[in-house]
Formats: sequence, C-alpha cells, structure tokens
Amino acid sequence: MQLKKVAEHVHARLVGNGDVEIGAVASIESASVGDLIFVEEKANLPRALESAASAVLVGDFGAGESSKPLLVCAQPRLAFARAARFLAPASHRHSGIHASAVVHPAARLANDVTVDESVVIGEGAQIGSGSRIGAGSVIGAQVRMGNDCELHPNVTVYRGTRLGNRVVIHAGAVLGSDGFGYVREEKTGHYEKFPQIGRLEIEDDVEIGANSTIDRGALDITRIGRGTKIDNLVHVGHNVQIGEDVVIAAQTGLSGSAVVEDNVVIGGQVGIADHVRIEEGAILGAQSGIPSNKIIRGKGIVFWGTPARPIREYLKELAVLAQLAKKK
Amino acid sequence: MQLKKVAEHVHARLVGNGDVEIGAVASIESASVGDLIFVEEKANLPRALESAASAVLVGDFGAGESSKPLLVCAQPRLAFARAARFLAPASHRHSGIHASAVVHPAARLANDVTVDESVVIGEGAQIGSGSRIGAGSVIGAQVRMGNDCELHPNVTVYRGTRLGNRVVIHAGAVLGSDGFGYVREEKTGHYEKFPQIGRLEIEDDVEIGANSTIDRGALDITRIGRGTKIDNLVHVGHNVQIGEDVVIAAQTGLSGSAVVEDNVVIGGQVGIADHVRIEEGAILGAQSGIPSNKIIRGKGIVFWGTPARPIREYLKELAVLAQLAKKK
Amino acid sequence: MQLKKVAEHVHARLVGNGDVEIGAVASIESASVGDLIFVEEKANLPRALESAASAVLVGDFGAGESSKPLLVCAQPRLAFARAARFLAPASHRHSGIHASAVVHPAARLANDVTVDESVVIGEGAQIGSGSRIGAGSVIGAQVRMGNDCELHPNVTVYRGTRLGNRVVIHAGAVLGSDGFGYVREEKTGHYEKFPQIGRLEIEDDVEIGANSTIDRGALDITRIGRGTKIDNLVHVGHNVQIGEDVVIAAQTGLSGSAVVEDNVVIGGQVGIADHVRIEEGAILGAQSGIPSNKIIRGKGIVFWGTPARPIREYLKELAVLAQLAKKK
Repeated sequence: MQLKKVAEHVHARLVGNGDVEIGAVASIESASVGDLIFVEEKANLPRALESAASAVLVGDFGAGESSKPLLVCAQPRLAFARAARFLAPASHRHSGIHASAVVHPAARLANDVTVDESVVIGEGAQIGSGSRIGAGSVIGAQVRMGNDCELHPNVTVYRGTRLGNRVVIHAGAVLGSDGFGYVREEKTGHYEKFPQIGRLEIEDDVEIGANSTIDRGALDITRIGRGTKIDNLVHVGHNVQIGEDVVIAAQTGLSGSAVVEDNVVIGGQVGIADHVRIEEGAILGAQSGIPSNKIIRGKGIVFWGTPARPIREYLKELAVLAQLAKKK
Repeated sequence: MQLKKVAEHVHARLVGNGDVEIGAVASIESASVGDLIFVEEKANLPRALESAASAVLVGDFGAGESSKPLLVCAQPRLAFARAARFLAPASHRHSGIHASAVVHPAARLANDVTVDESVVIGEGAQIGSGSRIGAGSVIGAQVRMGNDCELHPNVTVYRGTRLGNRVVIHAGAVLGSDGFGYVREEKTGHYEKFPQIGRLEIEDDVEIGANSTIDRGALDITRIGRGTKIDNLVHVGHNVQIGEDVVIAAQTGLSGSAVVEDNVVIGGQVGIADHVRIEEGAILGAQSGIPSNKIIRGKGIVFWGTPARPIREYLKELAVLAQLAKKK
Repeated sequence: MQLKKVAEHVHARLVGNGDVEIGAVASIESASVGDLIFVEEKANLPRALESAASAVLVGDFGAGESSKPLLVCAQPRLAFARAARFLAPASHRHSGIHASAVVHPAARLANDVTVDESVVIGEGAQIGSGSRIGAGSVIGAQVRMGNDCELHPNVTVYRGTRLGNRVVIHAGAVLGSDGFGYVREEKTGHYEKFPQIGRLEIEDDVEIGANSTIDRGALDITRIGRGTKIDNLVHVGHNVQIGEDVVIAAQTGLSGSAVVEDNVVIGGQVGIADHVRIEEGAILGAQSGIPSNKIIRGKGIVFWGTPARPIREYLKELAVLAQLAKKK
C-alpha cells in the first residue's frame, strides 16, 4: 500500500515521498523495509530515522526536514493504531459452521457467522452478522450476541447473557456465571444458595481479557458499559454496574453491587468491595482497596493504598513513617 | 403455584390471601405481577408494598396490616432462597450422553447422568446418579464423582480427583492440577519438579467458582470440607486443608499446606502463605495477608492488613499515621 | 525395583539392605511397605524410621545406625524428586491423534505426538516429537512447539506462539493472548485498540500453572526464559521479559514491558507495574507491589510491602507504627 493512502486514512499530513510502499507496522527496534513506525516524543525521532523503517508517524514536532517520509498528526499513537488496522491482512475467514460444532436447531445465526471447531451453541441463542465463535467455546441457551463480535477459543457464556456489537472476548473468559451469594441457616450454620437468576449484559465495543470472569446479576442485571476494556483475570461480581469507557487492568476484582461510573481508570490487582461507588473519572492505583459502601470521588484524582486515599496523602504517610523508622 | 403452598414449603406464616398465584422470585425493583419478593429491614417494607409484586416475605416485624399478602418468618432471605428453588422450573434435563462426548469404555456412569457436548471422560472414572457434566469439560481417569453434581462447561478435573455429592463447579475451574513444588539443584541452579502425585478431595455440597484452581496434594491430599463455598479465580495450593462451611471470596489465594478450620470467612484477594493455620470462625478482611507459619485465632474476630492483625489495631494504626502526616 | 538401583540412579550412598523392593515414593504420614520416604532434618528421622516405609532418603546426618535401609546424599529432597520420576510408571501413552481431534492438513506433527479428544490444531502449526496435547486444547495457526511438551486439557495457544522443549502447560492456561493496550481518542474519549501483533516465546523447561495468562508482545516479543516456573492464575503482560530459573507464585501479575532477570523469586499476589526491572536474584515477598519504572536491586535480598522496600525496613516501619498506636 502506498504511504499516501495510509496518510489519507489516518488524516495525517504527508511530508516526503508518498509513493513509498508500506506493508505493516512495527516497533522502532524491529522495523524493516516496508514498515511504518511511530514516535511520540521528539527525543526518539533520531532513533526512528536511523531504523530500517520506510516511514515514520510523528507528532507536530516532526514537521521539519527528514531522511524518511513522515506522517505528521496530533495523536501519532492513535494514528499508528488505525494504520495497523488499515494495513492488517484481511483474515481469510472461513465464514461458516465447522462440522464438529453442535448448534441447537432452535438457535438463530446470521448467514455470515463463523463457528469454529467443537463450539456448542444452545437452544434459542441468537448470533449476529459477522460474529466469530472460537473453537471450544460454549454459548448457553437464549444468549443474544450482536454483530461482528469475536469470541476467542474456550470461552463460556452462560444462559441468557447478552452481548452488543463488536464485543471481543479472549480465551477462557467466563460470562454470566452465578454470583457468590449464600444465606446462612442459623441453626445448622450451613450456607444455602441465594438465587442467581439475573442476567449479564455487555454493551457495544467492550473487550474482555483472557480467563476473566463476569457474574450474572442475582435477581437483576450486571452491566458492562459501551467501550469499556477489561484486562485478563479480572473478576466482576453480581449486580455490578460499570459505565462507559472504563479501563480495568489485570487481576482487579469488583464485589457485588459495586458501581463504576464512566471514564474511570482502575489499575491492576485493585479490590473494590461490595456496594462501593467509583465516581466519574477517578483513577485507582494498582493494588488499592476500597472498603464496602465507600464512595470515591474526584475526576482525574489518583487514589492509592488500602483503604484508598488521594495519592498525595498516601505518599506523605509513607514518607512520615519511613522517617520515624529511620530515627529508631 | 399458590402462595399458601410456598408458605408451607418455607415454613412461613401466611398473612392475607394464600390463593394468590406466584410464578417466580424477583427483586423489589424488577418485580411484576406473580412475583414473590423479600424484605429484611422494616424500612424497606413500604417500597416493597408499593412494588408490583404479588406477595412479600418479611421478618417478624412485618406481621401487621398490609396491602399485599405476606409470608412472615425469622429468616426472610433464607426463606426467599428456598422459595426460589421451589419455584424454579424443572430443567428439562436431557439426561443422556451427547453423541459428541467421548466416554472411555471403562468409565462407570450411573444411568441418569447427563453428559453434554464434547465432554471427555477418562478410563475408570465413576460418576454418580443425577450428575451433569457441562459441554467441553474433561474428566480425567479414575475421577470419582458422587450424585447430583453439576459441572458447568469447560471444567478440567485431573486424574484421580474425588468429588462428593451435590458439588457444583463453575465454568473453567481446574480441579486437581499439579501443585507448585520444585527442588533447586545446587550446582546448576535449575529447578526440578517435586512429585505432585497426591489427590484432591472435595466433600459434599461444595461450590467452586469460575476459573478457580485447586491443586492436588504433593504426596498426600488437598481437602475442601463439606458445605464450603469458593468464589471465582481463587487459588488453593497443594496439601491445603479447608474445613466445613468456610466461605472464600474471589481472587483469594491459599499457599501450600495452609489449614483453614470450620466456619472461617475469607474476603476477596486475601493471601494466605504456606503452613498458615486460620482457626475456627475467624474472619479475614479483603486483601489481608497472613505470612508463613502464622496462626490466626479468634472466633468472630475480623483481621485486616498485611500482616493481618485485629481490625481495631489496624484501624488505630491507620488513624495515628494519618494524624502524623497531617501535622507535617 | 530394588533399592540399590534407586540409590545408583540418584547418586546416593546405600546403608543397609539394597535388595529391598521399592515401588513408589510417599510422605512419612502416608507411607506403606514398598515406599521410599525422605527426611531433610535430623529431628524428623525417628518419625521416619517408625513409619511403614521400606527405605529412607536422608542427608549426611543420617549415616549412623538405622532400623531401615537408608540412602544418604547431600540434597535428599532433590534425590527424592528424582527417585519419584525414576519409579513413576511409564504412562501408557496412546501416541496418536484421537478421531475427535481436528488437525489442519497443513499442520506438521512429529510421528509420535499424542493429540487427545476434541483438540484443534491450526494451519501451519508444528509440534515436535513426544509432545502431548490434552483434550479440548486449541493450538492456533503457525504455533511452533518443541519436543516432549505436555499441554493439559483446555489450554488455548494463540496464533504464532512458540514453545521450546519440555514445556508443561496446565489446564486452562492461555498463551499468546492480546496485550492490554489502547489509545484514547481525545475528542470522543473512546479507546481504540493498539496493535497486539507481536509474539510470545516460551523457552525450554518452563512450566506454567492452571488458568494463567501470558500475553503476546504488542509489536515485539514477550519472553519466558529457560527453566522458569510459573504458578496458577498468574498474569504476564505484553512485552514482558522474564529470565531463566525464575519462580513466580500464584496470582502474581506483571504489567507490560516489565523485566525480570535470572534467578528472581516472586511470591504470590505480587504486583509488578509496567517497565519495572527486577534485577538478578532479588526476592519479592507475597503481595508486595512495585510501582512503574522502578528498579529492584539486590541478589538474595527480600523486598516486601507496597511500594516494595527491603524487608528489614518494612518490618521496622510496622513495629514503629504499632508502638505509636499502642501509646494512644
């Protein structure tokens, strides 16, 4: 593909020879001829220009003279991501249902759905156009899935779960499993199961990482809002409400009925107890912990520690303590 | 089903019209006609009575006049859970072995076992009456499973693991995997595997969450006691002994040879190191950590922090530190 | 097998009757006639000699008189591990491809590979001699796997991942999944996926625990070095570089581009943020946390807490704080 076509697609200003052929994206270190690379900080530009890459995506700082053709734009990393998708080879999708898959006769699949080896699709499930189900995945009865979803292998989707469009689920993830709710019988001390008969709803453009687990609601609905991205091995409990464009890093856990508003950023291994509310735009540092029923408020403010507090306070406490210990 | 039949089943006292038809349970928010709801605190009773539900399960406080029929009992949440099971539609179990399953000829399955699509059952495995094995699950050789167990899809049970009756295993869980034990060769610094040839035994009425992993014993037995409930993404190491009626929330990990006595409650993301003993009835707050070889003692006492200490001490320490930091 | 043959195999000095028949290894508690047990500390020798075992592996301290035949050596635990492998019954491998497996015609499998039930192997995959693929596992296109690997059931290996020789992967693990990388579009606030098109390479003699997830590189390579052992439910992010003979306990997470040098030991539930470097031979205590871009240096030094500091400092801080709280 000619560089000028890439420039046009990503809305970048072309500086230099636009007829150069670009075949793929690469990192500065691994680039070879035909690759497009990107630079976010001016300091890295010389290294980029010395690489074997055929062209460089740069921020506005890069508009000067250059030994390689440049694509100049405001968000070079974003443009790079878009260029990567633009250049990616069309996967030769063998749209169709593999002979080893078992699709219930009362499931409704759009014409161009791809169902890989050993997939199981239950009664009454609906799968929208362009969606792909990876090998070994099990789609329960009455599941509804929109268009252009991609489920990687060995995913389990419990009965009745609903997915929007363009939802990506990585291998081994479990969607719609029973929440962790029991009632203790006072006399015997035995735990009896509280009904876990609600539903899980995942909105458009959500991506969920490998081996993460998202429970269905107990009586109502667990919801993951549009555009939210969840990393590997994350746990989301029953009745949790997650807003739009939320980012949750690996191994974080959200207990039952927690609420996470839009645009929140949550680090790895964070623990959010039941009935917590994380208000819009707050940022939770890795490993922080929010006790039950707490509200975390503060757009753009970073919280850290257990119990989580504004990071400035937390760091001050750490410094004071270290000082005291040194004196002893 | 008539309300009076539900009342009888859950041992509640009926106040009002027992001929009302009840079809399902629901939350106050989502209830519609035909639903049974429950109220644990008197303050929520007015909301319940304003809902569309047809009847309300209440504590003894609710014995007065009411615009809806009431079921009065000592533990309304418990009665609600039992009513839910009572009202649940009998799943039309297609008891039998799906054609795509591969069952070793030397496995012994009771007559009414359900084996779903693509299940694999190994040599010498025994599966008791009424048990169901979800699609894609793999049951190793010599596994013994009791009656009325339910394995959700894509569960893996390693060779020789034993499950009691009414054990529920959620999707993606791994039972009886090798423990994490190595011996370092002093000269080369390489790790060699210590034998992991013991067994995992899970007693009656245990439930294990999605994608949790429970290792077999190294030389002896890892044991999960009767009635214990384990949430998603929990790790239980080799030789761990867990008592009866223990509750373990999501993402908690127990290292090798830890002992958890009966009636312990463990929050989410707790870390229990090797050879720890948690004595009967102790409560471990979320994210707390218990270092190797420690004993945690105190029925009903909450421990928190790393290293875990009684929560009163921990909160006092946090307060003192916050105060000091403010002065600086 | 005669004890003297075991002695020879593990390079131990035989004291007593070498004609005793040994059939298996066992713990002191569970040993019966025909079993070999081991003792690392002299204090446990009397218990070992009272057990039903037929012979005892001991350290140099055990060279005296004894009621049972002894095998004396410098590292009795290591010798025991080797004896266990020596005595293990040859698994009657039914080398071959099960009829229910789906192997792409353009995959290349060595002659004596074992492919279990419902396995899927993609286009262009290569699998070396003696390797075994457990039931329900899915091997993506272009995966390369060396000799004598063992994949337990329901493992997913994404396209292009490379495994060396003698790699062991436990059930449910996911190898080569997409890393967690997004770019935020400034105007809309939506996250767009950064390309995750690099590779995962796992070197010889690595073992990876059940339900662990290891992401591929974004543009480059995620690497797990020779002999490294990873426990259950561990997360390894994109571009992470792990050295040789590293040990990582359960539920630990490593964020993108972290570097862990050779011979590092990492406890359970540790959190390592992005671009951290853990230098050779450092030891990270359970639940400790290393913030972004930090370097941890110190062969044989234990670090603990979040942010992790040398354990002596950390314990002193804890003591000072407890003292202050007591005074109040």
